[in-house]
Amino acid sequence: MRTYFQCLPCFAKQAVNALPMIDEAAREDVMRDVMRALAEIDFATSPPQMAKIIFDIIKKRCGNRDFYAEAKKKSNAYVLESIDSFREMIDTSSDPFETALRLAIAGNVIDFGAKHDFSDHHIHDNIDSVLNAEIPKKQIEALRSAIDEAANILYLGDNAGEIVFDTLFIEQFPKGKTTFAVRGAPVINDVLMEDAEAVGMIKLVPVIDNGADVPGTVLSECSESFKKTFAKADLVISKGQGNYETLNDMEKHIFFLLKIKCDVVARDSGYPLNSFVVMPPKNGEAGGEK
Amino acid sequence: MRTYFQCLPCFAKQAVNALPMIDEAAREDVMRDVMRALAEIDFATSPPQMAKIIFDIIKKRCGNRDFYAEAKKKSNAYVLESIDSFREMIDTSSDPFETALRLAIAGNVIDFGAKHDFSDHHIHDNIDSVLNAEIPKKQIEALRSAIDEAANILYLGDNAGEIVFDTLFIEQFPKGKTTFAVRGAPVINDVLMEDAEAVGMIKLVPVIDNGADVPGTVLSECSESFKKTFAKADLVISKGQGNYETLNDMEKHIFFLLKIKCDVVARDSGYPLNSFVVMPPKNGEAGGEK
Repeated sequence: MRTYFQCLPCFAKQAVNALPMIDEAAREDVMRDVMRALAEIDFATSPPQMAKIIFDIIKKRCGNRDFYAEAKKKSNAYVLESIDSFREMIDTSSDPFETALRLAIAGNVIDFGAKHDFSDHHIHDNIDSVLNAEIPKKQIEALRSAIDEAANILYLGDNAGEIVFDTLFIEQFPKGKTTFAVRGAPVINDVLMEDAEAVGMIKLVPVIDNGADVPGTVLSECSESFKKTFAKADLVISKGQGNYETLNDMEKHIFFLLKIKCDVVARDSGYPLNSFVVMPPKNGEAGGEK
Repeated sequence: MRTYFQCLPCFAKQAVNALPMIDEAAREDVMRDVMRALAEIDFATSPPQMAKIIFDIIKKRCGNRDFYAEAKKKSNAYVLESIDSFREMIDTSSDPFETALRLAIAGNVIDFGAKHDFSDHHIHDNIDSVLNAEIPKKQIEALRSAIDEAANILYLGDNAGEIVFDTLFIEQFPKGKTTFAVRGAPVINDVLMEDAEAVGMIKLVPVIDNGADVPGTVLSECSESFKKTFAKADLVISKGQGNYETLNDMEKHIFFLLKIKCDVVARDSGYPLNSFVVMPPKNGEAGGEK
């Protein structure tokens, strides 16, 4: 997906939201540098690629710290606190796969990029909404079959906190064929290996990092070993807007699970703003190497 | 009021909102120029001064048109359509001055600057809200007394549409001492002389223009004759955020009537977001020349 003019205020807002986490003395320079970068933006690239440029500016000005580290720990801990009740919700439901899937999409609300007003309340509001959301049965069944039939599933993680719901969903998959991917370096609140460790994902499935620090999946930025795993996968499950924005034009057997968080992605995808989406592959077929 | 970092995304959004009104071919250049201007922003100046710079960029790229002309006409016509029912609402209320005051503040919702999602519905929602809003009796009475006691009232208009409510409020003032001010040239949907003519303000009180095209009142940008009228006024009634942002630090007997539309003004003023405000002068005293 390309970047739209409407993304510019959102990039500026992402930078503003990061300001409290950096030295006060550096903030004005950061904002001026971000505005200069936005003036030179390449609209043909995807929004997460521009977000990476913005966070590079911020990191450079503040000693390359992972300034969302604390926030990510809190998000993980916050969702982990309720994991037993979520697991019970899944186990006692009439369709544990579907309930776990819906919860995994609800978890996508934990996003410090597109959503600027994250608070603890959102996740519980979203869980109520997602459990009752209209997600076409056909799309849920298509994903269920794809997971059953796939030989190599690559599951692309998105944000801290959300990854706890991903563990619950992956528990529903047939064993031994799923790999979970995290980002290769800090960017916003995107998942890293340490998050996969903190929430127990590493005990469930193999976890790899993609070698990049884009809040999405831009293959040209990723490590060779990640690219191999990606190519080998005959099913990719992509969580969140960042992965959608960077992969939606690709010929590949990808299901996108996300909440539509902005008008731009709503228009681009054709799904309504705030809807919870299980988006099947465009062409239905175009698997990985078998 | 100074400009805050939080204003930058809002400026970018104002530019994006203006895009549908300018040639498609010019849009990318406009956005890049706006971002460049934001990179060089003087944070010591008020937000409306920066908004003027942004709209100058847009106007320069699109032949200096008043690109909100149609929208302003529609806003005026839309409120005028219901003027009889609003006047009846005022006349049949237990306190016509207070009701007209509340409606004048409700009208402040018609703003294509701070509010990006204006639609017809907002005004009626706001009227219900403002009629029931908690506005301290003491502040309403302070304004009533100030109007009764003043010799020269200068009423600073804000936006098209809103100006219709200003006529209804000014009808409640003692006759012969009020002057209404409009902007000197087009900027966003701010009122011009043609709006004062369209809604009948010119039949009610003398109307002057301030000689400037800032969406606020920056005296150094205004004409000499406006500055004289301003200096002579022993009471200024200032409508809207733009006038607040440019005049709130001034030693002058000014009452600010506005809806608080953004976090920045909420924090700066101490009033909650979305509240309807009658803000008395800081020091209580500092009138004009008598």
